[in-house]
Amino acid sequence: MELISAHASFGGEQRFYHHASREIGLPMRFGLYLPPQALAGQAVPLLTWLAGLTCTEETFAIKAGAQRVAAELGLALLTPDTSPRGAGVSGEADHWDFGVGAGFYLDATQVPWSGHWCMESYLLKELLPEVQAAFGLATDRQGLFGHSMGGHGALTLALRHPGVFTSVSAFAPICAPSRCPWGHKAFTGYFGQDESTWAVHDASALMAAQPRAPYPGGLLVDQGLGDKFLADGQLLPEVFEAACAAVGQPLTLRRQPGYDHGYYFVASFIEDHLRHHAARLNP
Amino acid sequence: MELISAHASFGGEQRFYHHASREIGLPMRFGLYLPPQALAGQAVPLLTWLAGLTCTEETFAIKAGAQRVAAELGLALLTPDTSPRGAGVSGEADHWDFGVGAGFYLDATQVPWSGHWCMESYLLKELLPEVQAAFGLATDRQGLFGHSMGGHGALTLALRHPGVFTSVSAFAPICAPSRCPWGHKAFTGYFGQDESTWAVHDASALMAAQPRAPYPGGLLVDQGLGDKFLADGQLLPEVFEAACAAVGQPLTLRRQPGYDHGYYFVASFIEDHLRHHAARLNP
Repeated sequence: MELISAHASFGGEQRFYHHASREIGLPMRFGLYLPPQALAGQAVPLLTWLAGLTCTEETFAIKAGAQRVAAELGLALLTPDTSPRGAGVSGEADHWDFGVGAGFYLDATQVPWSGHWCMESYLLKELLPEVQAAFGLATDRQGLFGHSMGGHGALTLALRHPGVFTSVSAFAPICAPSRCPWGHKAFTGYFGQDESTWAVHDASALMAAQPRAPYPGGLLVDQGLGDKFLADGQLLPEVFEAACAAVGQPLTLRRQPGYDHGYYFVASFIEDHLRHHAARLNP
Repeated sequence: MELISAHASFGGEQRFYHHASREIGLPMRFGLYLPPQALAGQAVPLLTWLAGLTCTEETFAIKAGAQRVAAELGLALLTPDTSPRGAGVSGEADHWDFGVGAGFYLDATQVPWSGHWCMESYLLKELLPEVQAAFGLATDRQGLFGHSMGGHGALTLALRHPGVFTSVSAFAPICAPSRCPWGHKAFTGYFGQDESTWAVHDASALMAAQPRAPYPGGLLVDQGLGDKFLADGQLLPEVFEAACAAVGQPLTLRRQPGYDHGYYFVASFIEDHLRHHAARLNP
């Protein structure tokens, strides 16, 4: 892991690194906010943010205003990139919602994506444990959250890897990708036409298949009601809400009047999410 | 004034507008954060942020995390652009520290800049009073602050226009442009070689020429000690500090160990600045 830059921030440090990823097979970048407690040697919990379509490892660090609260609560914030870059796959950057910047936090099974597009393995087998180890963070508890495509990532990875994450939340997540245009396009491209392979990467389908509530401590989701992608049927929070209700999963789904899909929305409620995680990670 | 976009933010609205500027003679953009109190019809004070080299009307709105505190304190935040754009002056965008994105908040006297590069008149005679009127803001009190080139702008405009601003602060301002490379380049280009014309646009020279403290309620300046432009002699806070001391101007100059020149630094201390202004604007 090679340091690109470090910036003092609220008594901690906002850093950016790159490393040669074993799972992706390419260089990858990530952001890491270390709160003052971590700089002082404390093994603070890691909270990973999965960003949305077109974003990079910098987006959340620049726009969300999370460092202030993370410094107060003693949380390290990890911001991975949203896909491999520089793979050289033909047409990889032709679409803003597929390919570069649109990894969907899954391992693609279809050529030509299956070579490098394996963000799920990258996060679970490589980046998260290696960051915990390299920076002396807590290894017994970590949190996961994200926005839009990254909200899909947070909910699906938390459901696919039970016991790994102590706390989970999301902003405007793509809740039922099997049933929306973004998800159809991504899953067709990464997994192929056979829709039977899709359910295990669909947060609502995964939740509906649970034998009991997987996160009895509760999930937090914020959704803006002025979000055009909600109106377009890309997000479908009501499908996830129904799935949670059916299995008894406690869900705080807050519908926020007037808020849109962007980071002005995320910034407005980021403090609530960090406190949700801290209450479960630093009880 | 035509609305480009509006985003709900901390119960208020972050808006972006463009308008045909009479003073500049070109279309100009600006950002405006209206806190919940303003949306409810209250005549809140206006606090104008002048951004640094290369920035736009969006930079502060995206990166500083100021809306949260402005919503709490009831302050409207105006973020003008940093120069005319699209003037078609030959070579206007060839330098990152002169021309486009580098208006230095002054009225240029030298051709070819004198036609459009008149940010001082634009702000004082046009944008600020028109925004106060158009949005029903307080007209008897307003504040001014800024960063780097915009810190220069805040200090010089506050000193050149006594009685207009009730509260003033700055982050890493260019304190003595007559004595630093950025200022030399800008003043030579905009005002010509005759250095005797420069002092009335140099915050330290302006302060030194005051008969008495112009802001007896005090000025607030934050300066990062890890700022490479401080080390390069571009900022010279000690010159401004000495000028304030000589005229008895109360100055809180905070030297912040480890902080650099960027918006991670600004965001870390923005709350203190907003509270400095609110204490004087909403006493």
